[in-house]
Amino acid sequence: MYSNFSSAFWEGYRLGVTGIIAEFNPLHNGHKRLIDFAEKNGDTVVCVISGNFVERGDVACLSKAKRAEFALKCGVDIVAEMPVLWSMSTAQNFALCGVFELYNLGCDTVLFGSECGDIEKLMKTADILLSDEFSLIVAEKMKSGITFAAAREEAAVKLGAEKDILSKPNNNLGLEYIIAAKKLKLPLKFATVLREGEPHDSKNEGSNYVSASFIREKILSGDIGYAERFMPLQIRGSFSPDSVADIRRADRAFLGILRTKAQEDFKKLPDLSEGIENKLYFSLRVAKSLDELYGMIKSKRYTLARVRRLVLSAVLGFDKKFFMRTPPYIRILGFSARGEEHIRTAVSIIPVVMRVSEIAKLDSDSRDVFETECLATDLYALCFSRPLECGLEYKYKLLKP
Amino acid sequence: MYSNFSSAFWEGYRLGVTGIIAEFNPLHNGHKRLIDFAEKNGDTVVCVISGNFVERGDVACLSKAKRAEFALKCGVDIVAEMPVLWSMSTAQNFALCGVFELYNLGCDTVLFGSECGDIEKLMKTADILLSDEFSLIVAEKMKSGITFAAAREEAAVKLGAEKDILSKPNNNLGLEYIIAAKKLKLPLKFATVLREGEPHDSKNEGSNYVSASFIREKILSGDIGYAERFMPLQIRGSFSPDSVADIRRADRAFLGILRTKAQEDFKKLPDLSEGIENKLYFSLRVAKSLDELYGMIKSKRYTLARVRRLVLSAVLGFDKKFFMRTPPYIRILGFSARGEEHIRTAVSIIPVVMRVSEIAKLDSDSRDVFETECLATDLYALCFSRPLECGLEYKYKLLKP
Repeated sequence: MYSNFSSAFWEGYRLGVTGIIAEFNPLHNGHKRLIDFAEKNGDTVVCVISGNFVERGDVACLSKAKRAEFALKCGVDIVAEMPVLWSMSTAQNFALCGVFELYNLGCDTVLFGSECGDIEKLMKTADILLSDEFSLIVAEKMKSGITFAAAREEAAVKLGAEKDILSKPNNNLGLEYIIAAKKLKLPLKFATVLREGEPHDSKNEGSNYVSASFIREKILSGDIGYAERFMPLQIRGSFSPDSVADIRRADRAFLGILRTKAQEDFKKLPDLSEGIENKLYFSLRVAKSLDELYGMIKSKRYTLARVRRLVLSAVLGFDKKFFMRTPPYIRILGFSARGEEHIRTAVSIIPVVMRVSEIAKLDSDSRDVFETECLATDLYALCFSRPLECGLEYKYKLLKP
Repeated sequence: MYSNFSSAFWEGYRLGVTGIIAEFNPLHNGHKRLIDFAEKNGDTVVCVISGNFVERGDVACLSKAKRAEFALKCGVDIVAEMPVLWSMSTAQNFALCGVFELYNLGCDTVLFGSECGDIEKLMKTADILLSDEFSLIVAEKMKSGITFAAAREEAAVKLGAEKDILSKPNNNLGLEYIIAAKKLKLPLKFATVLREGEPHDSKNEGSNYVSASFIREKILSGDIGYAERFMPLQIRGSFSPDSVADIRRADRAFLGILRTKAQEDFKKLPDLSEGIENKLYFSLRVAKSLDELYGMIKSKRYTLARVRRLVLSAVLGFDKKFFMRTPPYIRILGFSARGEEHIRTAVSIIPVVMRVSEIAKLDSDSRDVFETECLATDLYALCFSRPLECGLEYKYKLLKP
């Protein structure tokens, strides 16, 4: 079911309709390299991108409209949105939504960048992680008091995985894609490209491929010119400081929203454990900034990214009923001429929406998902140098050739 | 039932236990003159002050704790709080709560400043405003399309009121006190002191008595030294820029809170007419600041102060069930030695609370009123240069000698 796309197989091999799951926050040279690879070795390139809130529990530095536009300019054929309920969620949920959307948009292959660059090794590791034995060993190891991440790595190595695979973030995310597809029994193939340049979160400027967090830092500090050195030529000069969103501008707004909530409002949040919803409530009573709040909740078990997601999920009033479920519809943000042609042939088992007005006709789950999306965008609008109005979801214009 | 306290009667007349309803936003020389007058001509001086949100639909520039402290320093014996549901309400509701609290705290006289300075004229005008004839004439006059304020003045003059009385804000507020007491059948006497110096909202700096809005402007612009020139000696040097609250700091917070609300959430707000709750909802969808929002809703019928109150009532989730009702408890913020002695003798028909912990034992209306108060203070906390924590209501320490 899964083809092997390790580097030795590339010569002469065609990828077919290739899917990429990404945040493009912002789209940089590393992303461009992945898109170019998909374009050169396959047919149509389909992307599922995070909406205005991203997986690390933050707002995207540029709106999804802007990021979809950039993706199309850089060679992507179809850009679909990952609704905020999944985009600002665990890696598992993020992966679940991503592969499910890609499959329904007619992709046969999912392409991702990884530190290991070897799809065979990753496929094998995925099988290990999915085995019953693995769960048993992890449970056993955690009794000794080590972290889940450490127990997970030790158990995988014990079952034959290569030592360093699970310590690298892009390997891990790729593994989540593979695992999600296996769980959903989607007949997708996987391919990986060796990640070049600096590791995730690195600040080394020497490379042509610096980390997205380094680029964001430059953008948020106002140095767009500098940030653009690491972005593809096609999109340089395409945004101004006015179009940059910074969560710090909404610090009091998000604190204020949390302050209006009752303790019981936090019970329906996803991804809770250890009574964290109560810790959240009591911490937000004393926190004077979001950063202070994150610091109060962070623990060995609740990483900073997880805490940030928890807090922003509370701000947006997430409902856990959508957690670890597949999305009820797929929303297209834009397409190229080739993408438009492809989209007509794709047979999706869930509605594919081109205009938000179509969502009103869907089931109540779809409307709930979209309502959360609208609120997310209305609050995202408070993160700009001058607040934007509400209802931008309704004003969104499908990007087309 | 109502004694005449026109100036001719002052010589030798004692006021008894004297009540003053005020915002002290901030306490200035004009207020001090009123307090001194009450002290010199009466016994105990009791004040009911607005909490952290004030009648004009704004936050108080200094916290109620600070303003209560200032009042005590300036000679007031008992400071009671007007809960936010009344303090940020119509003049009628504000007056209703004020006189009701003063009466229950054992006052026999309510003292206020007015432009007319003649209590006989004001008593007579109050009777006119309360007459059935008056309502009929107002209704008739409004058919011609003039504003309610204009119709009200014309009708009053027709029934024998002096021409300029109803065009002056302090006369009007005094009239509301008298009318509220009459409606509640409270055996209170009223006295007025001629207001000196500049009219309400004036910016003329020439006088010793400038308007509170002018002083606030100086405080909010950071010029505390200048503002203190118009404040009593007893309190000069008692606050720093850090203790000044400015609603502009919560602009995004309040917009954000409004953005999380559904259209139907606005139905339970007090003081609605003409479907204003829907206008509010649709305006807040496009407004990029509170000022912009106010401007969108303002109309001939909805004055700026009323609109500001409406918007902030929505932020605080006011419930109209408390509108035009008397408060369920009286909370004391502080007292002098004389005030402490007096308070033991006062026989209130509603609970008089010294510690917030006592409120938990009261009825559900009381707890609802206090819950709104807590939220108001938690959001007020976002109006400082650095946000303050939640729960300051619980930390409030009764000011005592």
